[in-house]
Amino acid sequence: MEEQALKFMKAALKEAQKAAAMDEVPVGAVAVKDGKIIARAHNLKEKKSSATRHAEIELIEKASAKTGNWWLENVDIYVTLEPCAMCTGAMINARIRSLYYGAREPKTGCCGSLYDLPSDGRFNHVFPVYGKIMEKECADLISEYFKKKRAEKKERS
Amino acid sequence: MEEQALKFMKAALKEAQKAAAMDEVPVGAVAVKDGKIIARAHNLKEKKSSATRHAEIELIEKASAKTGNWWLENVDIYVTLEPCAMCTGAMINARIRSLYYGAREPKTGCCGSLYDLPSDGRFNHVFPVYGKIMEKECADLISEYFKKKRAEKKERS
Repeated sequence: MEEQALKFMKAALKEAQKAAAMDEVPVGAVAVKDGKIIARAHNLKEKKSSATRHAEIELIEKASAKTGNWWLENVDIYVTLEPCAMCTGAMINARIRSLYYGAREPKTGCCGSLYDLPSDGRFNHVFPVYGKIMEKECADLISEYFKKKRAEKKERS
Repeated sequence: MEEQALKFMKAALKEAQKAAAMDEVPVGAVAVKDGKIIARAHNLKEKKSSATRHAEIELIEKASAKTGNWWLENVDIYVTLEPCAMCTGAMINARIRSLYYGAREPKTGCCGSLYDLPSDGRFNHVFPVYGKIMEKECADLISEYFKKKRAEKKERS
């Protein structure tokens, strides 16, 4: 499992790098079924001018298009950052099998930080969460992005 | 305010009826800015085969396309059913001004029922929620839908 998790998180990191290259907050994700990646996505909030376009929402829609079903049975999601309320809720609604995330997100994370929605048995779906996989690489990519943004802002002022 | 709220909830109910006619769970929503409806949407989960396609996600994307901005400043949302975690999270992310909902949703609602996410000051946006507007009409539409579905299922078996 450990080796598999690293392989898929590396693929999610590649997606995050695509977001960084587009000047989006660098978050990337992949969906895995039967040991194979069935969808890849990254944050497109600025490009699509919509607060809903986080990597995970893009990913869930691509995975559903691929399987032809809103129910993502036996699908695991790998994402470089701990999901927010919207994205965690989407994973509950899509009934994913399990979640693997990279960096913790203490300000908005709902998979252990502010809330732990995936373990709440009152919802109609519960799934396990494995956090802090390649944590440093995932977190570094995001801090570098914000460092660059701050420098650009300083240059302009 | 009371009269305005009724007018906009009626428009959201019309959207919910469109969903019912398409055999989707009948939830509808409208987005209002400067006293005018800028977007209308309804649940399209089955048609689009994606768990993300709740009325509110459809609506937020339409409203952002209309205003050209992911930040839905001064936008109020009217929806016939208390939003789930995904949709409440999307409203936090889009920084809407306020939410008006119709029927309570004790099983999945995150605007007062299971959680009260919009009032949690740890997120980067907080907004007021006004619930139970035209509650009976909104709830009846949903119960009728499920009653019909159960009858259909019984006929088939």
